[in-house]
Amino acid sequence: MEKMNLNKHISGQFNAELDDIRNRVLAMGGLVERQLEQSLDALSSLDAELAQKVIEGDHRVNGMEVSIDEECTRIIAKRQPAASDLRLIIAISKTIADLERIGDACVRIAKAALDKRTNNQQPLLVSIDNMGRHATRMLHSTLDALARMDAENALELHKEDAKLDKEYEGIIRQLMTYMMEDPRSIPGVLDVLWAARAIERVGDRCKNICEYIIYYVKGKDVRHTSYEDMEKDVNS
Amino acid sequence: MEKMNLNKHISGQFNAELDDIRNRVLAMGGLVERQLEQSLDALSSLDAELAQKVIEGDHRVNGMEVSIDEECTRIIAKRQPAASDLRLIIAISKTIADLERIGDACVRIAKAALDKRTNNQQPLLVSIDNMGRHATRMLHSTLDALARMDAENALELHKEDAKLDKEYEGIIRQLMTYMMEDPRSIPGVLDVLWAARAIERVGDRCKNICEYIIYYVKGKDVRHTSYEDMEKDVNS
Repeated sequence: MEKMNLNKHISGQFNAELDDIRNRVLAMGGLVERQLEQSLDALSSLDAELAQKVIEGDHRVNGMEVSIDEECTRIIAKRQPAASDLRLIIAISKTIADLERIGDACVRIAKAALDKRTNNQQPLLVSIDNMGRHATRMLHSTLDALARMDAENALELHKEDAKLDKEYEGIIRQLMTYMMEDPRSIPGVLDVLWAARAIERVGDRCKNICEYIIYYVKGKDVRHTSYEDMEKDVNS
Repeated sequence: MEKMNLNKHISGQFNAELDDIRNRVLAMGGLVERQLEQSLDALSSLDAELAQKVIEGDHRVNGMEVSIDEECTRIIAKRQPAASDLRLIIAISKTIADLERIGDACVRIAKAALDKRTNNQQPLLVSIDNMGRHATRMLHSTLDALARMDAENALELHKEDAKLDKEYEGIIRQLMTYMMEDPRSIPGVLDVLWAARAIERVGDRCKNICEYIIYYVKGKDVRHTSYEDMEKDVNS
């Protein structure tokens, strides 16, 4: 928080508004994190009731995206923010889009839990669960970096995604072997495959959010740049 | 164009700036459209050279996203736009994110063309190609609606995505049968499956862009609403 300019504003109301959208994004992040945990719980224990709860909960995530986005536009129009205030609002408006898509990934995982065909894929579900917990930790740390607007941490997390990708590749190979050995398992394994894919995308979304954190703190758009260049920007 | 407020501005320079980012988004759209066509050409004819060209061309798409986004932020900070001008800039800044992701989808399709394992999947490639051309037409019409900021057309296109989804489901079933009949084909078929998935996502991205068009023209955020509600907003 010490890096933020909140106290520089003459308008106390403007401060309150910026504080408010920051809190709302973090609340949305918390909700998405719970959705992810519950979707993984539902998949590992094939708990249809919990899966249904995750699917039904997605409209709350969507609603938060729309209302925070609306508030961002309102603040831009009313307060005409510049410099770091404007960057904060832009970073928030991009972050909520990625959080909403993580919410969609949770729905996809929950749907795999509902599918009867996955019931026979217990050994695969263990690998998926490990990968899912890894993604959950990554999301948790990303939200932490977001709460503290910590660019150094965001850079570290950005690297972490490569590990999740490796894990994903391993699972895809495992699923392929499985299908080749027992072609009847193919429909069920494909459901698991979509869940794995959804989890892999959670990592990508976290990586995006980390880029917005760096953009806010350092004023540099680091999308599509190499890790080395990003490191230079963060340490400059 | 008649719906736009470009001529209302006292500042001719501001007009020119808004015109300029609109043109740049359309140019980016044109580039992405060519990337999509060429990636599909590369896949249907298994043309490695063309596939490589698509993969290498993606950095231009990325570069356009970053530079247009930068320009949007600059205009917000400098011109403090409100109402429809602000909506235009927000719609553009969201559109380029989706265009960039369509660019990523093209890379994924091109990579499937490079993979030797897909060589034996000719019958599948025909289905993929049909679906791909459907997605290309959808992208073309979406960019058209964007150029004319035509909300009615955007609403029509939004519906179109459901047809693409149906086509995708048919392909997935076809791929599944294929794999079950000949398990040795699984790795190659999975490559085709990723390409199909990438094409299906192009439709989703077009749908998003249509929502931004409606947002700009009608001032209503129609994300996550039903088709009926959307129709009411467009016709109001």
